[in-house]
Amino acid sequence: MSTRGYDIAQVSGGVLAPAGFSAAGVAAGIKKRPGSLDVCVLDAGTPVPSSAVFTANTMAAPPVLVSREAIASGRLRAWVVNAGNANACTGEQGHADALAMAEVTSRALGCDLADVGVASTGVIGVPLPMTRVLTGIEDAVGALGTSADQDTAAAQAIMTTDTFVKQVAYTVEVDGSVYTVGGMAKGSGMIEPNMATMLAFVTTDASLTSEACSTLLGTSVASTFNRITVDGDTSTNDTCALMASGVVGDGPIAPDHPHIPAISAAIGRTCADLARMIVRDGEGATKIVEVTVCGAASEADAEAAARSVANSPLFKTALFGRDANWGRVAMALGNSGAAIDPARVEIVFAGITTCKGGTAVEFSEEEAAEALAHDEVEVKVDLHLGGAQATVLTCDLTYEYVRINGEYRT
Amino acid sequence: MSTRGYDIAQVSGGVLAPAGFSAAGVAAGIKKRPGSLDVCVLDAGTPVPSSAVFTANTMAAPPVLVSREAIASGRLRAWVVNAGNANACTGEQGHADALAMAEVTSRALGCDLADVGVASTGVIGVPLPMTRVLTGIEDAVGALGTSADQDTAAAQAIMTTDTFVKQVAYTVEVDGSVYTVGGMAKGSGMIEPNMATMLAFVTTDASLTSEACSTLLGTSVASTFNRITVDGDTSTNDTCALMASGVVGDGPIAPDHPHIPAISAAIGRTCADLARMIVRDGEGATKIVEVTVCGAASEADAEAAARSVANSPLFKTALFGRDANWGRVAMALGNSGAAIDPARVEIVFAGITTCKGGTAVEFSEEEAAEALAHDEVEVKVDLHLGGAQATVLTCDLTYEYVRINGEYRT
Repeated sequence: MSTRGYDIAQVSGGVLAPAGFSAAGVAAGIKKRPGSLDVCVLDAGTPVPSSAVFTANTMAAPPVLVSREAIASGRLRAWVVNAGNANACTGEQGHADALAMAEVTSRALGCDLADVGVASTGVIGVPLPMTRVLTGIEDAVGALGTSADQDTAAAQAIMTTDTFVKQVAYTVEVDGSVYTVGGMAKGSGMIEPNMATMLAFVTTDASLTSEACSTLLGTSVASTFNRITVDGDTSTNDTCALMASGVVGDGPIAPDHPHIPAISAAIGRTCADLARMIVRDGEGATKIVEVTVCGAASEADAEAAARSVANSPLFKTALFGRDANWGRVAMALGNSGAAIDPARVEIVFAGITTCKGGTAVEFSEEEAAEALAHDEVEVKVDLHLGGAQATVLTCDLTYEYVRINGEYRT
Repeated sequence: MSTRGYDIAQVSGGVLAPAGFSAAGVAAGIKKRPGSLDVCVLDAGTPVPSSAVFTANTMAAPPVLVSREAIASGRLRAWVVNAGNANACTGEQGHADALAMAEVTSRALGCDLADVGVASTGVIGVPLPMTRVLTGIEDAVGALGTSADQDTAAAQAIMTTDTFVKQVAYTVEVDGSVYTVGGMAKGSGMIEPNMATMLAFVTTDASLTSEACSTLLGTSVASTFNRITVDGDTSTNDTCALMASGVVGDGPIAPDHPHIPAISAAIGRTCADLARMIVRDGEGATKIVEVTVCGAASEADAEAAARSVANSPLFKTALFGRDANWGRVAMALGNSGAAIDPARVEIVFAGITTCKGGTAVEFSEEEAAEALAHDEVEVKVDLHLGGAQATVLTCDLTYEYVRINGEYRT
């Protein structure tokens, strides 16, 4: 049975767009501002096939360690998330607190402790205010619902200094079946006194197997969340999870099922949108910059080269200044470790060729500055060596980044 | 014959402090501001044992390619340097221009083309104004001298947007012999429209062999110039060279000579001072930050960890804000790839312990902010895993960095 075509359409909502889930976001008093939503519970009603990927940071926070163990079974019933405190660098107490969050959630839901994943984001090195957190969890479980309001409240309750709610949903129709995928994320907003953290939760009503969840999440993350960078730093708490309620589909959808490409496309689109929102909301960013390297000898080279350019503070600062500074791109390419023939490099800023055959091409600085004034800017590099290509999203480096991150914690 | 002790003392001057060298710095009109010195010649009078290390950037500029070939013999007579134009990303014309710089220098000096090293720094992607450059070289050779004025003029002529002249010299006395080492450098000042470049030239009157030059330069660079970072970007033109006139010493001083440790110490001190000056003059920097990681399982781990912290924009911005934000240090450690036991990590900002056993230690934020207000700040990390240690120097990330690098090129 070969795959036929499929149709994808965006729909409203986030993690509650697919059937089979309920959620809530409540104010538990963890965040400083009174009334701010800061505890979220996302519930599938019963343990369902799930997958999650976590930060590669070796200083991974206790909630990450707890969730890594829980997800090993390939099934979870719920995620509990708090914002305002990352429960990171908190030692044994932090581990006990993360377990307590799972324990109280499971008790309130009536399931096993091992069926609950835990995520935290916010200030690090400060013990969680456990009384507030646990009360908040009980409140959230009591408030679980499926309305659009709860959908948005859940997405708000995982935010730190994000300036807007990040949620999106898609349906995909294939062979007469309609699957829905939804997601919410929080991005690289800073919270005093610490680092950016990325959290993302994706739901689907497709009856994916655990293995399919793992494969689809891995593929999507590799080309979306792992291809964005704000400042090259990876937090101790990064978590990205997928849950499949199984409401739609005739029997289990394993990785070799013919509907997989369609479902994968919807999950990919959801992750890509959330990733783009995270970059757009990067600290102090005025623009999204899409760095594409093509003509590379291998995909690894293409990615290394694109990442080196996207992470270069000199490049990012130039874009803030609307400066088509291709010399900085050349420099970053040369530092990437990718195979490069300097005499073949071509660099295009927002459609304007600035460098060809490794040397300068005349162009109008005014025209370039105008093209770089837009919210979204494309920088393309052709290495003219092979057929591999990769894109990395980043943002510009601005005064505001320095202000946000340089402020006193007090 | 075992090494006895030795005494090191700082003396005035730079590359002309050791006997056997002459130098000049002249204004050739390459830099925009009229009268700015921009061509430098450093001459040893005859081909002498020499060594050089260059950028690892694969987009290395033509002067680097020309100098790599010249230095292969282990002997050079002279270096010719221009500032204001990096002759990078200039293709075949750039290569011909770099060769022409060597050729005109060698003709004026009366030596072989292969006896001349070439270095350039400044704007990239723009062809060198060769008429001016070649006239400047002839003027510089005509002006060669050994006065303190010429010493300083040479150091000025290699500057781009450096805000101060970088030169230093030391003498070292061992077993009755007195050796002198001098050096000049230019740092990570930006020059429109491009990247930072580091150039450093070190001279000594010790009768080092070529092999000894290579060994001593390699050792010194590894612990000095290779242990500094302003923004993690490596330029296309970085060059660091050592020349030994051989005026002092009874016969050749090979790597196993008993005076080597003393001479090595003087070269190391010279390089360390120049490296520190480069960081102090980092773009927009308000302070030098010395990041030391000790207690690492291996020296590679110690260096990786220190480098990861020193390169973290979040860490560098926090230091601008006088914020003892140890969470960002923990995050950067976790991203370094070094072996780390999170439960053992200790982090000390300017003498104030902020984290021990991987968790927060109470400290006064006001006291910390005061301690971090100084020009030079030490951040120490003890991984409590082993005996290895490494230090990396960096500077803070400021509004001024964004301003300097984000300005229009026009």
